Amino acid sequence: MGKAAGAGVQLDVGARFGAARRRTLALCEPLTAEDMMVQSCPEASPAKWHLAHTAWFFESFVLREFLPDYRLFNPDFQWLFNSYYETFSVFPEKRLRASFSRPALGEVLRYREHVDEGVERLLEGDPEPEALKRIELGVNHEEQHQELLLTDILHAFFTNPLRPKYREQGNEGTGEQESNAALHNPVLRFQEFEGGLREIGRRGEGFCFDNELPRHRVCLEPYALGDRLVTCGEYAEFMADGGYRRPEFWLSAGWAAVQAAGWNAPLYWTRENGDWSVFTLCGSLPLEKLRTTPVSQVSFYEADAYARWAWRRLPTEFEWEAATEGQPVEGNLLDSGWLRPVSTSLLQNRRLTPWGDCWEWTASAYLGYPGFRPLEGALGEYNGKFMSGQMVLRGGSCVTPKAHIRASYRNFFAPETRWQFSGIRLAT
Amino acid sequence: MGKAAGAGVQLDVGARFGAARRRTLALCEPLTAEDMMVQSCPEASPAKWHLAHTAWFFESFVLREFLPDYRLFNPDFQWLFNSYYETFSVFPEKRLRASFSRPALGEVLRYREHVDEGVERLLEGDPEPEALKRIELGVNHEEQHQELLLTDILHAFFTNPLRPKYREQGNEGTGEQESNAALHNPVLRFQEFEGGLREIGRRGEGFCFDNELPRHRVCLEPYALGDRLVTCGEYAEFMADGGYRRPEFWLSAGWAAVQAAGWNAPLYWTRENGDWSVFTLCGSLPLEKLRTTPVSQVSFYEADAYARWAWRRLPTEFEWEAATEGQPVEGNLLDSGWLRPVSTSLLQNRRLTPWGDCWEWTASAYLGYPGFRPLEGALGEYNGKFMSGQMVLRGGSCVTPKAHIRASYRNFFAPETRWQFSGIRLAT
Amino acid sequence: MGKAAGAGVQLDVGARFGAARRRTLALCEPLTAEDMMVQSCPEASPAKWHLAHTAWFFESFVLREFLPDYRLFNPDFQWLFNSYYETFSVFPEKRLRASFSRPALGEVLRYREHVDEGVERLLEGDPEPEALKRIELGVNHEEQHQELLLTDILHAFFTNPLRPKYREQGNEGTGEQESNAALHNPVLRFQEFEGGLREIGRRGEGFCFDNELPRHRVCLEPYALGDRLVTCGEYAEFMADGGYRRPEFWLSAGWAAVQAAGWNAPLYWTRENGDWSVFTLCGSLPLEKLRTTPVSQVSFYEADAYARWAWRRLPTEFEWEAATEGQPVEGNLLDSGWLRPVSTSLLQNRRLTPWGDCWEWTASAYLGYPGFRPLEGALGEYNGKFMSGQMVLRGGSCVTPKAHIRASYRNFFAPETRWQFSGIRLAT
Amino acid sequence: MGKAAGAGVQLDVGARFGAARRRTLALCEPLTAEDMMVQSCPEASPAKWHLAHTAWFFESFVLREFLPDYRLFNPDFQWLFNSYYETFSVFPEKRLRASFSRPALGEVLRYREHVDEGVERLLEGDPEPEALKRIELGVNHEEQHQELLLTDILHAFFTNPLRPKYREQGNEGTGEQESNAALHNPVLRFQEFEGGLREIGRRGEGFCFDNELPRHRVCLEPYALGDRLVTCGEYAEFMADGGYRRPEFWLSAGWAAVQAAGWNAPLYWTRENGDWSVFTLCGSLPLEKLRTTPVSQVSFYEADAYARWAWRRLPTEFEWEAATEGQPVEGNLLDSGWLRPVSTSLLQNRRLTPWGDCWEWTASAYLGYPGFRPLEGALGEYNGKFMSGQMVLRGGSCVTPKAHIRASYRNFFAPETRWQFSGIRLAT
Repeated sequence: MGKAAGAGVQLDVGARFGAARRRTLALCEPLTAEDMMVQSCPEASPAKWHLAHTAWFFESFVLREFLPDYRLFNPDFQWLFNSYYETFSVFPEKRLRASFSRPALGEVLRYREHVDEGVERLLEGDPEPEALKRIELGVNHEEQHQELLLTDILHAFFTNPLRPKYREQGNEGTGEQESNAALHNPVLRFQEFEGGLREIGRRGEGFCFDNELPRHRVCLEPYALGDRLVTCGEYAEFMADGGYRRPEFWLSAGWAAVQAAGWNAPLYWTRENGDWSVFTLCGSLPLEKLRTTPVSQVSFYEADAYARWAWRRLPTEFEWEAATEGQPVEGNLLDSGWLRPVSTSLLQNRRLTPWGDCWEWTASAYLGYPGFRPLEGALGEYNGKFMSGQMVLRGGSCVTPKAHIRASYRNFFAPETRWQFSGIRLAT
Repeated sequence: MGKAAGAGVQLDVGARFGAARRRTLALCEPLTAEDMMVQSCPEASPAKWHLAHTAWFFESFVLREFLPDYRLFNPDFQWLFNSYYETFSVFPEKRLRASFSRPALGEVLRYREHVDEGVERLLEGDPEPEALKRIELGVNHEEQHQELLLTDILHAFFTNPLRPKYREQGNEGTGEQESNAALHNPVLRFQEFEGGLREIGRRGEGFCFDNELPRHRVCLEPYALGDRLVTCGEYAEFMADGGYRRPEFWLSAGWAAVQAAGWNAPLYWTRENGDWSVFTLCGSLPLEKLRTTPVSQVSFYEADAYARWAWRRLPTEFEWEAATEGQPVEGNLLDSGWLRPVSTSLLQNRRLTPWGDCWEWTASAYLGYPGFRPLEGALGEYNGKFMSGQMVLRGGSCVTPKAHIRASYRNFFAPETRWQFSGIRLAT
Repeated sequence: MGKAAGAGVQLDVGARFGAARRRTLALCEPLTAEDMMVQSCPEASPAKWHLAHTAWFFESFVLREFLPDYRLFNPDFQWLFNSYYETFSVFPEKRLRASFSRPALGEVLRYREHVDEGVERLLEGDPEPEALKRIELGVNHEEQHQELLLTDILHAFFTNPLRPKYREQGNEGTGEQESNAALHNPVLRFQEFEGGLREIGRRGEGFCFDNELPRHRVCLEPYALGDRLVTCGEYAEFMADGGYRRPEFWLSAGWAAVQAAGWNAPLYWTRENGDWSVFTLCGSLPLEKLRTTPVSQVSFYEADAYARWAWRRLPTEFEWEAATEGQPVEGNLLDSGWLRPVSTSLLQNRRLTPWGDCWEWTASAYLGYPGFRPLEGALGEYNGKFMSGQMVLRGGSCVTPKAHIRASYRNFFAPETRWQFSGIRLAT
Repeated sequence: MGKAAGAGVQLDVGARFGAARRRTLALCEPLTAEDMMVQSCPEASPAKWHLAHTAWFFESFVLREFLPDYRLFNPDFQWLFNSYYETFSVFPEKRLRASFSRPALGEVLRYREHVDEGVERLLEGDPEPEALKRIELGVNHEEQHQELLLTDILHAFFTNPLRPKYREQGNEGTGEQESNAALHNPVLRFQEFEGGLREIGRRGEGFCFDNELPRHRVCLEPYALGDRLVTCGEYAEFMADGGYRRPEFWLSAGWAAVQAAGWNAPLYWTRENGDWSVFTLCGSLPLEKLRTTPVSQVSFYEADAYARWAWRRLPTEFEWEAATEGQPVEGNLLDSGWLRPVSTSLLQNRRLTPWGDCWEWTASAYLGYPGFRPLEGALGEYNGKFMSGQMVLRGGSCVTPKAHIRASYRNFFAPETRWQFSGIRLAT
């Protein structure tokens, strides 16, 4: 059989690879080359950069190492599109990405083709298992950037004073259902879970990131989780009750952020003539129509303050994972096509639905699991070096590919981050 | 028996109160009124402010509530010396404390006497148990500020270009021992501990802060802890090996801090003509004499980078507590009178010595324990609202009162903090 | 005669208008739509924004007021492309211009056509003299933005780590002359001028900005001006003599800027393996080839420090104007096509040559002349409100249209500004 | 006759020296050692530092050079109390002055005595004329710091939330007059002046700073100056008319400052329950009582905006000097003892009274006069290196020593400066 992992695995990986690469391009269809230049906040990158960097990842960690006769598309791209791997090469400051008018979009697309051709060629051969693992890692990396690409373009379009839309409307055919449902929030019920020893971390053989391992035991107290996310309507009540003006609800650092940044609503909420609207990839929608949709684009501090106002708390990542392990991944993820949180998901299923709509802030700091070991080499910088000052989020959002998410998946952002599709699940 | 907690408790509390209050004043003896005005970094407060704020604490949370005929010393002091209790009163920005030339030191000392007299009068009566608890809390609060007062004055004197000394030398009589010992670091040995379910948090009846509760179970993997702290000599090797120039050792946020702040040594290390010295409360000491004393005034980022360089890691706060619970509190604490880390402690006892010299950075973010409930009312802000963005430190330092520290004690600072007596214990 | 200013004037204005508008587009020919999105420093704007804003100027101050049936191209553009006219409309923060991916370049070009068609229609009618004046103002405004467009794209390309070129080489056919000439700097001679009362400010009927008036008398002491600009080779001597390390040459604010920003050479000078290069619109050129070309992209502080090092000073704007009034405008301006300072200009003419190559920093703060009156209405914000904290520059640069510059012309920038083609003329 | 300037000059200088040195101490009488530690804004220094630095000036520029057997009081003080003379020695960052608890006040006073004794010994000998000149410079330097000491302590006391008073009340005996006068502002009349050639700069033999020379001719247009300063009552009208909310009155940099800093009144104006008060060295006074006193502690931007609102302008420094040269120095200066602007000065004298109450912002940038030459050596840094980014103020304030001010005197501050006694005279 040689060194190969078997034809089946290769086929799978190949199919996953092709689908992921095609989807990235499909997500760019509504965008012009000019749109793909915009970098509107320090967290974000231009869409064109996402296209190039994901190609760079395959080139650097797959083709250079595993395809013997691979020819670099452009040697400068090796350092130009390195994001943050200090041990791989020097790299440009992140803020400079907005100046990358060259290479032009066309050349970046050719770069992608060149890399695709290389990976396909590698897959047609008899690749080492490590090469297949790396391709799988690259596919997961690509999926993360699909999500970021949409997150970033939403911020870019929000920053443009004309507020262009990424597309005209949500998932057609189901739009009507949503508007019918938008009148009242269903009662928030708490589903109870037993305490005791639970295993946490990726189980089994499938792909996972290094930060989901090692699987290990934690000891939980009995707890309960809200069966749905907090909605815009509920969040508006917090605001109306002086939520942003009353320090008693806030962590000290959160209150400082409120003061310094002048927060008085979630990031994309705007008010005109007293009426709130929420900016989405489908343009501005009146808050009135979103009263039963999950609130999104809130920071950890806002999530935590809301929870305290509601006499609840945020769950730990362990409570979350223990509660959701084994549940089938279904929900308003990227594949549903809505591209924004929707209320329909609330109605069909009164069981806790952990997937999609918004990433859920947890009360857990992002730290390594006991015995955590980063990947070898430069790839060790992928996750490990960010284990400081960030909070864990779980569950995926309306722009997370369905194939990408799982119970053990750990997303992480600094507690003041607001440009993400990040929302609130209560615990008790 | 009435409402009283019993005469014994009262006597104890009274003795603890008197001793703590006297010691605060004793610590100020080497200081002039001018020294007590200096606030040399955002983390620090002037010594005079510490004197006043600790009086304020007893006035606000004990006398106002429990001594019926108590007369405020000065109504303005109610808000002037409030540190951060948002729900108690407005309060001045921290940075303004350097402008408090009035009230004069003399008036602050009278304020303390006025408050002392009130507390003594209360103790002579038949105080409610809650009043006694509050006094005990106030004593612990006073002890924390004793430590801060010394930490802050060290920074103040380091900032003064003349580099005055807080006092001439260390604990007399033992000085000679230290200098004899200072040649070689004893081999660092790792003491092993079993994994499994352990109870964490304050056990029993004695005083503790709200953040040490509830006592709860955690599940540990087997681990080992270094039997002593990392020394200046060892840390100098890390520096010599390019520690501050090699990103591979650093968390991303730590590396950013190194770049932005230009760190190249612990905070109080200075170099002249190629030779390093370390500034202490006893003035500048040559590094050569401190090669076997614990390194201090390092940030979490530096501690973590050192550990990675040494192919080790930092312990979690749970590993630390599980290993030290039940050990008698003995070590180089405030009561030893050294006022700086010393090497003698390394030599006498090859068992792990968790107490004193330096606070030990752990790998644990400062978060609430399962079921954590802050104190009622404004006192709930004492600890709880800081549970974001900080790391836990354990074990006390050379300026921590011995009576103040215990196995369950959780100190916490932001990971970039360097003005504390904070050092490094390795784990594996 | 009616209200018209006469057919001759109209023809002139029409020709000037057409030429200016065409040249702006011609300058964009080497640029892609992506290039035209880049805004790489706070001083700069994207090229596309320059295209749109100059159209906006004609629409807002000419067509809206003087063409009765004029239809706005897009009502949103009225505020979107307002740069800073507070009394005209709200306007977006300058830094947001980098997010204007919409309108697309094509739409901006249609906007320009729409406006051109309006202005042409107005000119074909019988426009009021005020309308013609406004068109002339708009043409001058367009010329300023031609210069800025090139200045900004040079910064954009310098910021791109790939350092693309705006074009392949300088003005063909003369390139050879320059390289032959580049060996030695001609002796710098000082041309003497008498003191006494001189008239300053625009004389006669031609167009000028409000800040060039009223013409008024100043009293000068006898003085002398260098007959050419300081060259790169001379500036390199200043650097080699510790220019950037010796505070005695610097204004206090200049020295602070050196320290804070780490300046050690002009903005676009880079060093590799010990050899300096200078980035230009024609790419990076070795300093060796530029030793006799004027140094450019220096701040006022650097110009002033250089002058003090050379035991000279910078001229006042009045000395400059008194010396150059009446001299024909000839030199290395935009029309020469070099797009960078060149040494040939130094050689042909040993009379003082005030025009082109670089704007010359003067020792004069930018203030209103006695009796200065800004234009009426929003146009009064064009120049007047910037009369604080800026220094006057004179003479035009290699990217200034020849028709745009004159002896009374006052350019102005903050003293720390370095992205301009700004150089040094000495006085004594 | 030897090298001496004559016994008469020596006596004069000696008397001026003694008086100045004594007055500095007298100004500190209301202050405690703690007050003298406060440095409450970047512009200010602690009073103790002023005491030490003025002694340093005599030691460094007089005694070290001209008293052969002079023994330094403390060699460290040579660099410790250097303010900004780069070519004299290294010096501590300005912000560190707040950490100078050591040397103690007592030692600083001994330093002063030591220096006084040296200067007196030098004066008893046969000093060179240059030595006498340096002493005279030192006296003028001391007078500048007397003014700064009061300006800085006012800011220190304003910063202290208790708002202590420097002293209880104003100049006794005249207080009543003022309150009677406080009802209506006298009509502001404009005194006209001819244009033409005028000489500007110090005339004659008396002391002046290098920046008042060379005397030179300027050409003025006819102009008129307001016969009194703008009052608090008038300024309140500007505020009531939306002065701080209407960009049309403001320079662009001024409007940016208003937005960034949230200015809505002069620096020391505070509002409680809708009523404005003004904090002074005599405590907080109701605005109602100050309606006819000159407005103070406004920036250049505010002065300029007020002038534009009033359809006037600020005078140039040349207009100011030409109008006031030859007028006897009489007014509300330090010697009057009020220590704040008062309205009485408005009433007695309907001729333009240029002296005292507030420094008057002019429309002139602070630049060197034609042929300006700084003093030799380190003293050349006294004035010259600040000739960038600052505006000239004229006329002295209520804390300027009367002997210190003259028609040619040029004070200078950055246009955003507000902690000075700086006010508004209109011109037209």
